[in-house]
Amino acid sequence: MLAPVAVPAPSFTAVLFGLSGCLVDFGAQARTLRGQDGTTLLSHDAQAFAAPTPGALSALKNLKQQGVPCAWIEEYPASIAEQLAAPLKDLIQPTPSPNNHWPAPDACWQALMSLNVAQIDGCVMVSADPRQVMAGLNAGLWTVGIASTGPLCGLSPAQWEALSDLERERLRGRATLELYAAGAHSVIDHLGELDSCLADITLRRQKSEKP
Amino acid sequence: MLAPVAVPAPSFTAVLFGLSGCLVDFGAQARTLRGQDGTTLLSHDAQAFAAPTPGALSALKNLKQQGVPCAWIEEYPASIAEQLAAPLKDLIQPTPSPNNHWPAPDACWQALMSLNVAQIDGCVMVSADPRQVMAGLNAGLWTVGIASTGPLCGLSPAQWEALSDLERERLRGRATLELYAAGAHSVIDHLGELDSCLADITLRRQKSEKP
Repeated sequence: MLAPVAVPAPSFTAVLFGLSGCLVDFGAQARTLRGQDGTTLLSHDAQAFAAPTPGALSALKNLKQQGVPCAWIEEYPASIAEQLAAPLKDLIQPTPSPNNHWPAPDACWQALMSLNVAQIDGCVMVSADPRQVMAGLNAGLWTVGIASTGPLCGLSPAQWEALSDLERERLRGRATLELYAAGAHSVIDHLGELDSCLADITLRRQKSEKP
Repeated sequence: MLAPVAVPAPSFTAVLFGLSGCLVDFGAQARTLRGQDGTTLLSHDAQAFAAPTPGALSALKNLKQQGVPCAWIEEYPASIAEQLAAPLKDLIQPTPSPNNHWPAPDACWQALMSLNVAQIDGCVMVSADPRQVMAGLNAGLWTVGIASTGPLCGLSPAQWEALSDLERERLRGRATLELYAAGAHSVIDHLGELDSCLADITLRRQKSEKP
């Protein structure tokens, strides 16, 4: 019998992340910055929501260590997005705001071009927003949904902590279903679980599956 | 026994074309425009190579009739590309010259964005240049190679006509192999055969195959 040939696992080409509700701003609370008229954004307050979500910094550090280029994508005006992204500096690149909004694929392609990515193969979009998950799919990316920290649960850290386990589970379950319905290949609770998700996508890629 | 359910064939989202050696400029002769120093391009002479290749106009007209948006991609400076594309006006959109050259995927993504394409699914790159075929693959597109009219055969219409059938067949065969080696999903002789190629890709898409 022949010994099995060890095929090295394919590495990831690039990973794109949502910003508000994914890397920072647990519960996507920056959306409450809208003024009385419902459209004006009160950008001077955005830094209040710039705390990284659980697992965000270590996920970015891991990817940086592996040499996987990363960029965030955000639809907020640059003045707000930059404040939100402040704690992530040196770990991830920003992407210029796209002309066409999610679920159009433009923002993803622009992010990949800004990272000088050579191929779509092995590129991943990680997001807590169903429209952004769809944008990733439309661009040809693998997609990972984040259930708890995004706009679908939509609660601040304090509100989230105040819930009973059962209430949290119910919200999380509903968000998970909604992200799968949007087409996400995997859904996890928060970025602390990203490694297991990427390992699953690696397995699927080794079986020649395509997103 | 149940009657088979008729599933309508998926339509194409967009088709991108190479310009010189594919839609126009049989034999990619515009490359001979380079001056004595090997780099300067003599742009005032480009229109001499602007004749559409066999089948190009009817292929574009068919796609236009089906409502499939099309764009051409070219690495020549805009002044030359515009002269080459002159006879295609109203049938196809130009793409701004990309920052990263083929086989980088940038030009393809930029072309798709300029067409306001909503998804990578169903997008096709048609080209006679192996580097451009690779750019299409890197961007996540289906790819069709064109053997006879491009830089791989590299002969002007008059030179091509002067060959014996056997010589033509030999050149065509070598170009076909080279385009398949670059990763093309299908290779045809010239754009007059594009319909058969697109029908083949439609079949593969119906079987859930991905590029």
